Amino acid sequence: METNTIFVGSKPVMNYVLAVVTQFNNGSDSVILRARGKAISRAVDAAEIVRNRFVPGSEVKDIQISTEEIENFNKEKTNVSIIEILIEKGE
Amino acid sequence: METNTIFVGSKPVMNYVLAVVTQFNNGSDSVILRARGKAISRAVDAAEIVRNRFVPGSEVKDIQISTEEIENFNKEKTNVSIIEILIEKGE
Repeated sequence: METNTIFVGSKPVMNYVLAVVTQFNNGSDSVILRARGKAISRAVDAAEIVRNRFVPGSEVKDIQISTEEIENFNKEKTNVSIIEILIEKGE
Repeated sequence: METNTIFVGSKPVMNYVLAVVTQFNNGSDSVILRARGKAISRAVDAAEIVRNRFVPGSEVKDIQISTEEIENFNKEKTNVSIIEILIEKGE
């Protein structure tokens, strides 16, 4: 089964926790949380809350970091860090 | 050789980049960047800047996330996420 990606932005962390739980309840075995810049810490929080409180048996299977070049409002190029956290539902 | 840990906090990201580069120049083969809460995104930025710009050949070898319970200023217990990024110097 394909792994769906949830993009973590500036909403409250529980929104993203709920999105992961919903994916698992709809039959997904794994989900990727993806965030960039300051939202990275929120993606980590969401993964930890899913694992510790909402989906017993779920595990963080892989974490990748990378860099993307984006254009800011002045059309200047700037680099932003990305995190991708793969969570598996487990048993 | 033991792996030194650099604690990433609220200083400018280049402070932590410099700390990693200094470790490598002093003979360390690997360094761990550790951060919690909102500093997590800064640790990822530091790792990416080291890898992409300052230490060609260096690689992110492992990333772990976890949760710690801390006491806030009201003596209430609250959870905070932790990231640990292992960087190896490479060739």
